[in-house]
Amino acid sequence: MATPFAWPVRVYWEDTDAGGVVYHANYVRFMERSRSEWLRHHGVDQAALRVQEGLQFTVVDMQIRWVRPAHYDDLLQVTTLLGPVTGARFRFRQQVWRETALLVEATVGVAAIDTESLKPRRLPASLRALSALTG
Amino acid sequence: MATPFAWPVRVYWEDTDAGGVVYHANYVRFMERSRSEWLRHHGVDQAALRVQEGLQFTVVDMQIRWVRPAHYDDLLQVTTLLGPVTGARFRFRQQVWRETALLVEATVGVAAIDTESLKPRRLPASLRALSALTG
Amino acid sequence: MATPFAWPVRVYWEDTDAGGVVYHANYVRFMERSRSEWLRHHGVDQAALRVQEGLQFTVVDMQIRWVRPAHYDDLLQVTTLLGPVTGARFRFRQQVWRETALLVEATVGVAAIDTESLKPRRLPASLRALSALTG
Amino acid sequence: MATPFAWPVRVYWEDTDAGGVVYHANYVRFMERSRSEWLRHHGVDQAALRVQEGLQFTVVDMQIRWVRPAHYDDLLQVTTLLGPVTGARFRFRQQVWRETALLVEATVGVAAIDTESLKPRRLPASLRALSALTG
Repeated sequence: MATPFAWPVRVYWEDTDAGGVVYHANYVRFMERSRSEWLRHHGVDQAALRVQEGLQFTVVDMQIRWVRPAHYDDLLQVTTLLGPVTGARFRFRQQVWRETALLVEATVGVAAIDTESLKPRRLPASLRALSALTG
Repeated sequence: MATPFAWPVRVYWEDTDAGGVVYHANYVRFMERSRSEWLRHHGVDQAALRVQEGLQFTVVDMQIRWVRPAHYDDLLQVTTLLGPVTGARFRFRQQVWRETALLVEATVGVAAIDTESLKPRRLPASLRALSALTG
Repeated sequence: MATPFAWPVRVYWEDTDAGGVVYHANYVRFMERSRSEWLRHHGVDQAALRVQEGLQFTVVDMQIRWVRPAHYDDLLQVTTLLGPVTGARFRFRQQVWRETALLVEATVGVAAIDTESLKPRRLPASLRALSALTG
Repeated sequence: MATPFAWPVRVYWEDTDAGGVVYHANYVRFMERSRSEWLRHHGVDQAALRVQEGLQFTVVDMQIRWVRPAHYDDLLQVTTLLGPVTGARFRFRQQVWRETALLVEATVGVAAIDTESLKPRRLPASLRALSALTG
């Protein structure tokens, strides 16, 4: 089993709400930061993909479960593990940890689309090759 | 079948991303706005609940599907329909519409928790009564 | 003296921080919502300006003072008053009120720029005509 | 003259808007991240200050100028330099750079307030000592 890629995220005031904890929708942002860094780590340059290939990613579905709250100034680790790649879609399994405590977990479907038409696009070979990384 | 409660949300620059569409995590915010207004519409004062009962809500899970993108300046309708209420949990079915086009849909689990301990709390009678609204 | 245009903004959980009040940067968003609605109120369609004229607005400077905090569920009024229009620039005076309490005030410089080059653009006649509204 | 403290900020999709650039209000967030890390770097633990001293910071004013846009995936450096400390107030000079290009600059007034009453509080000795760092 692969050790998942982990990206650190520090909790700032902007991420919290008046309940004293991280606002639930902000974990959805944290997870995209980790996926973006996972892509960079594996040699995918999203800015170049957009300009050179006219291709961008879009999130199509997510199943997410919030288990424990994070607080101001916590240092979180947001993991990304690639699941099945089918057609123009990636599926990721992601988790948010504070040390050994699991805070949030999700599976996320991401599709490649055309930058202009926003229609689904077949994955180019450079992206299909990522499927070898499936965890 | 109940007609779902709908809350209008205008898309501003702050809601969009460089892909030219509404950033996916922002629909999660829009859905909470609609649930907050649904609660207000049914006589639930969240600020008072917090101060008087020491009770607040927390989102515990969500299954969400992004179907079509929204753009700058779109006027959206975000619907909220109450599903089963079990113990300290509400389940909502929510959708985001632009006129007759469905853009996003989700089911959302929300729990009542203690403001101090953040532990689950039994729903007070005033909230249990909402279960009569189940759609 | 003109009565300023006012746009209501409800404070949701997403707007607050763990200090229990509205996060300071979010008032900057609220002010743009009010300016967008002020433009709409005066017949300016930003989406059409972009597509038809290749023109968009950019905020170039702001002097802002936070006076009193807003809390969850507050209903705010965000006012917009046009100050001098010079060349390709508007200057707005904006305030955030909760009933009779002033919470935040700012002056905001906004420039018209080309959508492609992001360079300053002379205001078209339709926008220059707004200068008659100077408060 | 002191070399200012610099904190790196990567631009993610969440930070951009449909104009293709970083949304203006988000630089206000980036600046707070840098101030928070500046405080940590100088031994100030904001979470402990809050719990042990009942003291937190609030932003009271800002003069900000947006000079050049940042784009998706840019790696920015956000600098923080302490200016005069007077009574319960810090004044910071902050800038956002992309390599040698200045993108945004601001001066920011920050006050120490009581966590409960939200009233101004005299700075404790540990914070007054920071004034030796004035740039």
